[in-house]
Amino acid sequence: MIIIMHSHVTDEEVRSVEVKLESLGLQAHVSRGVERTIVGAIGDERKIQKETLQALPGVEDVIRVVKPYKIVAREWHEADTVINIKGVPLGGKTIQVIGGPCSVETQTQMDLSAQGVTQAGCRLMRGGAFKPRTSPYAFQGKGVEGLDMFRKAADKYRLPIVTELMDVRMLDTFLEHQVDMIQIGTRNMQNFDLLKEVGKIHTPVILKRGLCATVSEWLMSAEYIAAGGNHNIILCERGVRSFETAYRNMLDVTAIPWLKKETHLPVIVDPSHAGGKAWLVSALSKAAIAAGADGLLVEMHPTPCEAWCDADQALTPEELTALVNELRPLAQALGREL
Amino acid sequence: MIIIMHSHVTDEEVRSVEVKLESLGLQAHVSRGVERTIVGAIGDERKIQKETLQALPGVEDVIRVVKPYKIVAREWHEADTVINIKGVPLGGKTIQVIGGPCSVETQTQMDLSAQGVTQAGCRLMRGGAFKPRTSPYAFQGKGVEGLDMFRKAADKYRLPIVTELMDVRMLDTFLEHQVDMIQIGTRNMQNFDLLKEVGKIHTPVILKRGLCATVSEWLMSAEYIAAGGNHNIILCERGVRSFETAYRNMLDVTAIPWLKKETHLPVIVDPSHAGGKAWLVSALSKAAIAAGADGLLVEMHPTPCEAWCDADQALTPEELTALVNELRPLAQALGREL
Amino acid sequence: MIIIMHSHVTDEEVRSVEVKLESLGLQAHVSRGVERTIVGAIGDERKIQKETLQALPGVEDVIRVVKPYKIVAREWHEADTVINIKGVPLGGKTIQVIGGPCSVETQTQMDLSAQGVTQAGCRLMRGGAFKPRTSPYAFQGKGVEGLDMFRKAADKYRLPIVTELMDVRMLDTFLEHQVDMIQIGTRNMQNFDLLKEVGKIHTPVILKRGLCATVSEWLMSAEYIAAGGNHNIILCERGVRSFETAYRNMLDVTAIPWLKKETHLPVIVDPSHAGGKAWLVSALSKAAIAAGADGLLVEMHPTPCEAWCDADQALTPEELTALVNELRPLAQALGREL
Amino acid sequence: MIIIMHSHVTDEEVRSVEVKLESLGLQAHVSRGVERTIVGAIGDERKIQKETLQALPGVEDVIRVVKPYKIVAREWHEADTVINIKGVPLGGKTIQVIGGPCSVETQTQMDLSAQGVTQAGCRLMRGGAFKPRTSPYAFQGKGVEGLDMFRKAADKYRLPIVTELMDVRMLDTFLEHQVDMIQIGTRNMQNFDLLKEVGKIHTPVILKRGLCATVSEWLMSAEYIAAGGNHNIILCERGVRSFETAYRNMLDVTAIPWLKKETHLPVIVDPSHAGGKAWLVSALSKAAIAAGADGLLVEMHPTPCEAWCDADQALTPEELTALVNELRPLAQALGREL
Repeated sequence: MIIIMHSHVTDEEVRSVEVKLESLGLQAHVSRGVERTIVGAIGDERKIQKETLQALPGVEDVIRVVKPYKIVAREWHEADTVINIKGVPLGGKTIQVIGGPCSVETQTQMDLSAQGVTQAGCRLMRGGAFKPRTSPYAFQGKGVEGLDMFRKAADKYRLPIVTELMDVRMLDTFLEHQVDMIQIGTRNMQNFDLLKEVGKIHTPVILKRGLCATVSEWLMSAEYIAAGGNHNIILCERGVRSFETAYRNMLDVTAIPWLKKETHLPVIVDPSHAGGKAWLVSALSKAAIAAGADGLLVEMHPTPCEAWCDADQALTPEELTALVNELRPLAQALGREL
Repeated sequence: MIIIMHSHVTDEEVRSVEVKLESLGLQAHVSRGVERTIVGAIGDERKIQKETLQALPGVEDVIRVVKPYKIVAREWHEADTVINIKGVPLGGKTIQVIGGPCSVETQTQMDLSAQGVTQAGCRLMRGGAFKPRTSPYAFQGKGVEGLDMFRKAADKYRLPIVTELMDVRMLDTFLEHQVDMIQIGTRNMQNFDLLKEVGKIHTPVILKRGLCATVSEWLMSAEYIAAGGNHNIILCERGVRSFETAYRNMLDVTAIPWLKKETHLPVIVDPSHAGGKAWLVSALSKAAIAAGADGLLVEMHPTPCEAWCDADQALTPEELTALVNELRPLAQALGREL
Repeated sequence: MIIIMHSHVTDEEVRSVEVKLESLGLQAHVSRGVERTIVGAIGDERKIQKETLQALPGVEDVIRVVKPYKIVAREWHEADTVINIKGVPLGGKTIQVIGGPCSVETQTQMDLSAQGVTQAGCRLMRGGAFKPRTSPYAFQGKGVEGLDMFRKAADKYRLPIVTELMDVRMLDTFLEHQVDMIQIGTRNMQNFDLLKEVGKIHTPVILKRGLCATVSEWLMSAEYIAAGGNHNIILCERGVRSFETAYRNMLDVTAIPWLKKETHLPVIVDPSHAGGKAWLVSALSKAAIAAGADGLLVEMHPTPCEAWCDADQALTPEELTALVNELRPLAQALGREL
Repeated sequence: MIIIMHSHVTDEEVRSVEVKLESLGLQAHVSRGVERTIVGAIGDERKIQKETLQALPGVEDVIRVVKPYKIVAREWHEADTVINIKGVPLGGKTIQVIGGPCSVETQTQMDLSAQGVTQAGCRLMRGGAFKPRTSPYAFQGKGVEGLDMFRKAADKYRLPIVTELMDVRMLDTFLEHQVDMIQIGTRNMQNFDLLKEVGKIHTPVILKRGLCATVSEWLMSAEYIAAGGNHNIILCERGVRSFETAYRNMLDVTAIPWLKKETHLPVIVDPSHAGGKAWLVSALSKAAIAAGADGLLVEMHPTPCEAWCDADQALTPEELTALVNELRPLAQALGREL
């Protein structure tokens, strides 16, 4: 940690920073420059809060030198993590496309969805039984009944499933339904009690990025899960909030190579929520793969126009098949497979 | 709801929009302009999702005409809501300053805090027993033990208390401790299960704005609580995330008059988290009051430099007293009192 | 244009909107819904300002139905525009990589750059003689002397050149130096006098997106140039400002398919300024191409560590060659060439 | 400047940073911590670019210690700057409200405006003869004819005038018309050639903040003007771009106390452009004054509904008078006058 002192700092103020650092178990190292005096803190800075030092008189700024995350950092774990989801690997050479509807509606819809997902060549299926909706008057999901339908449809096609957990009290139900991968949604990326709970189990977790979370905060949320003991974490970029109003969110494609450098965890992208329109899915999917993503989370519905939510962003089963076929040569050109 | 069709729309496409609207119980009203055809939907549009229509062929855009919130809207409830917190009114002519530390640390710290809050002339006290922290390695709050300490300190000075609820499973404990006002934090503004739970009780709720929530989304979260039956809601602006790095958040002062026009609920401001620095609190507090806020949530600590979190943004008891004294003439100049 | 009236609107207020519309040469079309009355304006709304109507009593909101841009809109010009830059086509099947240093420094540096660009297989060269710098104390570019050096180096390799114009007074000098493509930088996207001047000539113009310009504002700036008579416009996405601090800007990859749908103009991407780091250039370039970009603007310097500006984002000549070689199979997989 | 090295840095890499620093005239000071090695650079870092060091192998991050601005910094000039605009002081104890229309339309409109401004008790007048408009098809201002009308109207009431300069080629015309204060608009905050030109004269300059400029970039633009020799600079906050769509811009009220701490220059606020609505002007004006602003730039039009631009944000003359009367007691409560 580096402490930058004000230009008119007194010797006494510098001394009190030294004393504080020492009381925190760090060594102080004072360096007097032409316009500023700087104090370097030597030791494990992860245990210290910036604010504690920032509050001292004479301190202008405090800068961290070490990254705040450790278990999820590539710095301490060089090899890519490959996660095994009931036999389907995520994070290695093969790019995985996870397809399925926004929300579980009926058994028929789920059966047709599972069929569509399989026919497109996807190996994992998504679908929401519990839906986070901006409005209390909107459809909130089929709940446990939806989990049943989803499980039944997926089992027919031997597809591992991923679905969103919003409430800690539902975790046992998820485990009973053998949900193969638990999604933590955008709005819960910093629901720390929920993160702690999924940190205690071993089911793989897809952690979506918060609407305006920095990549560092996102990795810290992953660190919460990892610190609990669950290292089966997949990061999912799904677009962030911006000033642009022409599309729902702004897909942060730069986050992909940045994450691949900073962490060993797999990174996937949700082009459906990012763009918010079916016609944008193809271009965004290609961009994601080209930038290095390990997979995609794509919305598909047997009859999009009749979907109970996000109707305008779901692909038809035929469009999903076409997408996968478009992505295959791209993956090959990038030295991967799909 | 207004449906704008593409420039090259066909009669058949227009017809299918009409059919869809009618199937949803609305009347369609087609208007052909020079460059665009428009379909107006007459009826209660709150029940319909934009996306359902947006997915239809030939549709370019769908625009809502009616606001999505109802119970919290001033349109349907003209008078200001004044909330009674154990005898202290919030939302009327009197501006309330809620003071107290970021987090509960020790009994002595809480006793000194309660004393400082009282001496400054504040009538409500804040303090966190459960802390949402970006890092799993940071101090997570004293938990239930902290609630005990807080209750004890506040009772000595007959101060109603407000503290943050993060986990639905702790609600009963909050009720047992007779927490007088429950805070829903920034990161939980769209934790819908939590909103539903506090909607079932009658304890006043401070709903903080999400880090990048629009004012409309924020009111929709308030609507969640109100729809459950709890109308004792206070909105708290605490700065939003922006591109600016010179201060922690950007206080959105425009939200204050906008909310006062759109909703009958009281609006307060947290200048401590907004600016992130003690030296900014005075200017931001004045700006908030001048813009029409009904109260402030201000961090104060008996010895800020030793605070266990956010040390650099807490005022000393003396500074809190000075702040209240500065705000009093301002309130009077605005026709209010403090 | 659609005018949404307040819920408690009076007949007189509706009437005054009708009168206003008629005075502006449009027809009014009133539609009374359950909760809101709406007035549709039929005629050419491009001539009218929203604000004129918004200021009328009883008006809640005014919504445009027609897009504000016309010459640059694909709606009125379906085929892709291909721009001929001294024989090099931009906007068709072939993807163009424009390489070169951030700024012109010396004749040797430019000669080596031109050589590197050619050897990498690029057909167009970039380089800045006039540099927009945040600080008045930073290197401001070599100016006219720099243009001379650039021209000389590029001519040796028969490379058409692109360089940034910041000041209207330098336009004649640019024309004398036969600059083949003029770049309008991020900070000047809404320097309307500059746009009007380059609208009067026929030299192709690269119009970079403003730091936080919406895609619609960007197209309106292109419309300024087009309205003057110069239709040789290339749009360049270079990352926008966001809350994220881990990388310089956030590349808005969604803008690429959006623009390809809305306009017939070519779209290129500057991965060097977007990411701000040499190691990000490859991933961002691939993402841009995959999303449908027609070209790239890539910084290359014979010895990046010695570059006088943006040293950390320039590729070496070898890295540029490697990049082009990486992009070639990708272009093919996408049905294009490079 | 502080250079943070990668965790696996080699001695050779550290050495090459030392050599580079020495070649730039700075002293290097190496400090080896537990997880990171840090190099401090002692000397005048303003002459060095971060990027030059960032490009060196083994370097993870480079942090500036000294602020990049000097002439405008309060660090080197403690007393508030008070600017004399033809006898009217801006920046001292008295708060100045600058009133007038968005754009000059007719002589009658300007005469009535000048009358309204005077009657409201304002001492300075604003009005635009050259208008920066998003659309090439919108009214672009009356130009030189507008300057004539403005001068004539203002002279009748002895009001110093402020008007926007967009094009360097018009500067002489502005000087001939004795424009008393030149406004540099939002879109030109980083039009460096324009900044350099107004730096050569002594007419006071109002420098508006760019739409998404950081406060540091803004001060750097002021530094451009100051470096040229013109120290008569007034900073004008006018709202920044954000994700919020309910109001035009987000007034950054935190910038006011931040600037008052960082610079000795006067700071004013434009509540009209910030909120974009006449009904928001009063609350935003009060917030600005309460936060410490030295003045306001308020749009007023004799008949707002007929204004040629921004009709919905202009106050009537009566509303301007009412605003000034509302602000007076507030100013007094804050120890200032108006």
